Amino acid sequence: MSRASDDQDVALAGASERLPDESPGLTRRDLIAGAVSVVGGAVLGTLPGIVGAQDRQPAAPPWRPPVPSDPTRVTGAPTTAVGVRSPFETPTRTPTGETTGNSLTPLQNLTGTVTPSDLHFERHHAGVPTIDPARHALLVHGLVDRPTTFSLDDIQRFPQVTRTHFIECSGNGRAAYREPKPDMTPQKASGLTANTEWTGVPLATLFREVGLRREAAWFLAEGADACRMTRSVPVAKGWDDALVVWSQNGEPLRPEQGYPLRLLLPGWEGNINVKWLRRIELGTHPWMTRWETSKYTDPLPNGTARMFSMELDAKSVITSPAYPEVVKAKGWRPITGLAWSGRGRVTKVEVSTDAGDTWHDADLLGPSLPKAHVRFQYMWNWDGGEACLLSRVTDETGYVQPARRQLLEVRGIGTDFHFNPIVGWRVQSDGRVMFDGET
Amino acid sequence: MSRASDDQDVALAGASERLPDESPGLTRRDLIAGAVSVVGGAVLGTLPGIVGAQDRQPAAPPWRPPVPSDPTRVTGAPTTAVGVRSPFETPTRTPTGETTGNSLTPLQNLTGTVTPSDLHFERHHAGVPTIDPARHALLVHGLVDRPTTFSLDDIQRFPQVTRTHFIECSGNGRAAYREPKPDMTPQKASGLTANTEWTGVPLATLFREVGLRREAAWFLAEGADACRMTRSVPVAKGWDDALVVWSQNGEPLRPEQGYPLRLLLPGWEGNINVKWLRRIELGTHPWMTRWETSKYTDPLPNGTARMFSMELDAKSVITSPAYPEVVKAKGWRPITGLAWSGRGRVTKVEVSTDAGDTWHDADLLGPSLPKAHVRFQYMWNWDGGEACLLSRVTDETGYVQPARRQLLEVRGIGTDFHFNPIVGWRVQSDGRVMFDGET
Repeated sequence: MSRASDDQDVALAGASERLPDESPGLTRRDLIAGAVSVVGGAVLGTLPGIVGAQDRQPAAPPWRPPVPSDPTRVTGAPTTAVGVRSPFETPTRTPTGETTGNSLTPLQNLTGTVTPSDLHFERHHAGVPTIDPARHALLVHGLVDRPTTFSLDDIQRFPQVTRTHFIECSGNGRAAYREPKPDMTPQKASGLTANTEWTGVPLATLFREVGLRREAAWFLAEGADACRMTRSVPVAKGWDDALVVWSQNGEPLRPEQGYPLRLLLPGWEGNINVKWLRRIELGTHPWMTRWETSKYTDPLPNGTARMFSMELDAKSVITSPAYPEVVKAKGWRPITGLAWSGRGRVTKVEVSTDAGDTWHDADLLGPSLPKAHVRFQYMWNWDGGEACLLSRVTDETGYVQPARRQLLEVRGIGTDFHFNPIVGWRVQSDGRVMFDGET
Repeated sequence: MSRASDDQDVALAGASERLPDESPGLTRRDLIAGAVSVVGGAVLGTLPGIVGAQDRQPAAPPWRPPVPSDPTRVTGAPTTAVGVRSPFETPTRTPTGETTGNSLTPLQNLTGTVTPSDLHFERHHAGVPTIDPARHALLVHGLVDRPTTFSLDDIQRFPQVTRTHFIECSGNGRAAYREPKPDMTPQKASGLTANTEWTGVPLATLFREVGLRREAAWFLAEGADACRMTRSVPVAKGWDDALVVWSQNGEPLRPEQGYPLRLLLPGWEGNINVKWLRRIELGTHPWMTRWETSKYTDPLPNGTARMFSMELDAKSVITSPAYPEVVKAKGWRPITGLAWSGRGRVTKVEVSTDAGDTWHDADLLGPSLPKAHVRFQYMWNWDGGEACLLSRVTDETGYVQPARRQLLEVRGIGTDFHFNPIVGWRVQSDGRVMFDGET
């Protein structure tokens, strides 16, 4: 921030005569004459939404177009059918590359509460199927009066609801819990979560349509992927707030989020929000599928395991400042991050800048919606010294995010899912920021 | 929707032995053996997020990958760095192709209230500039105590806010008002609006930082595009709810939405939400720029014109059923659409199915946020006869969306901006739906 004299605007508005750093051999006239085609071609050549132009420029390392020293001197790019990001913004989900893998939401690149759909984390166990929505159907059967196959058209004729909810993989934070390392980003430490607006129909509506029998207590949800993902869900969750959704952030689900149909169980671990949903069977007991016996259970120190631990505990993560960000100057700046709870609304987020000795209430930006990410902010006046930044969330049930040592006592280091310890960041006196998973 | 016997799930779960329609010569064994590579290659070959693979498949007409008859028989696609839409979903903004043009939000393809950033309408007068955020700055000067140049880093050190607001071009609906045609889609009739979550700092914060002089009554906002867009804004709006934003839907602004910095004046016509914001000058009177004299004024029948008519009137549009959709069957289905007001919250949306003879309160799906789109829904039992569907919004100030004839009386057919008449759709007995802009 620099104080300016009143005539500084003339220089700003009149365009610098200096040439861009990248083009020392160009004159100003060259720049003006050539910039339209150079900039236009460059943009067309690098932006992935424009088919056929991609081979004009290398893709990696991130290539940036020549930027005019004064953008007011060159006509800009035309309108486009589908927009693309600025070449200066290249967030990625850092996929593992495996078919049965995951990719992570780049939390450190995001602000606000909406996760862009194309950056929503992925977790699938047999790859992303390609499904023609016209051929897809949902069968609801078992302990029902009227077994029924619903096409997508059928489902969309019921009254719709639109709600914002997070999804979080129950494995989120495993590496940060077991082996915290200073160079973990928010993405690496906590990136298996995302928050989006969903549109669909309440599962309760379909329950009424098919007529549940009195003895129906559980249902099986089955996906149309190659592992035929199956999970057992208590019928009560279906009557409560479960949805069958086809839309996310205003548009049809992305393929990796279950296109064309997904079960959404707000606040419950990601895996049970069965993607590519094709079958719901009503029964009296859980099916004890592979995905709720060998997986998605929590081994405990005494040799037993928690099972059907679907509800996600409250959690928070500071996303800025965070590795690899460097705090550039002393003085005021926001400490900001995300908080959520599988039990309902976030009611409080506290921030500590001294490793937990003192805590301060953060502001919640925007409405705190039930079972949704909320953005928090605490203004911090950095004095240039070392600091340890932590966040701690409380939800409407009174549940308080625990310290790592508390979780270790109860669950042990070998537990496999549901990691929600308080974590944070150590700010060094040189401004560098390192992950701290052990305070 | 078809009733099923209880054993239908066996057929569904066991995968049809029939082959996909596209592959009459393939045996089931061929399909299983070859499907992984076929499907994988096809997906990689068509999805624009994967650089270098695009030339393997033609881009237009929309090409669809071979789809296995049973997706559970083939391993799906791996995780990706950035997601792409299903090949069965191809929404576009239908750009005009001009540099000083526009492109329209495909409202008929959207549900919920969030507009995906890459489908947010565009309107620019000298193309989309390419701006390096490290070189971009905002100068605030004129009638202030401390003229100041803010870098992006500087601005992001102030307390941030996150809010959801619509933007609407004041020319939205011009063609539908002047020359309504049956084959207009929601996109064509009303697509110059979009609704997203924004993050930035209140302009009031910057006002306090630079110290406004008592006589400052208006400010000029200037963009860094090639037309140096300039608009005059009353200082009161700056103190009220104006924002300087850098983020939309969780991520940095898209280039066509003002990257890296945009003025956001919630509820005011799109043009005055100056994109690529680089200068704010405080003064005593409006500057009478080209964009508030020859443009963005409303000619009236008596030869005068409304000027500085920045606040947007309440408006609603039914997005389904709508042309080119066909209502496939008699019976219940939702009539759904979007409503908004530049004056605050939407308090009521009414729907008529008989050309306005009777009106019924629609449900508002989700919270009705001030100066934001809200999704409405009215359940309709179509009897197979002709129907005329209309929507009418009321906002918290009591303002009611007018009929077209009311607008014509006051503004005339030749007015150039601010079109918010009640419009709707004629459903024919064959189920086809046509735009009706004149009821």
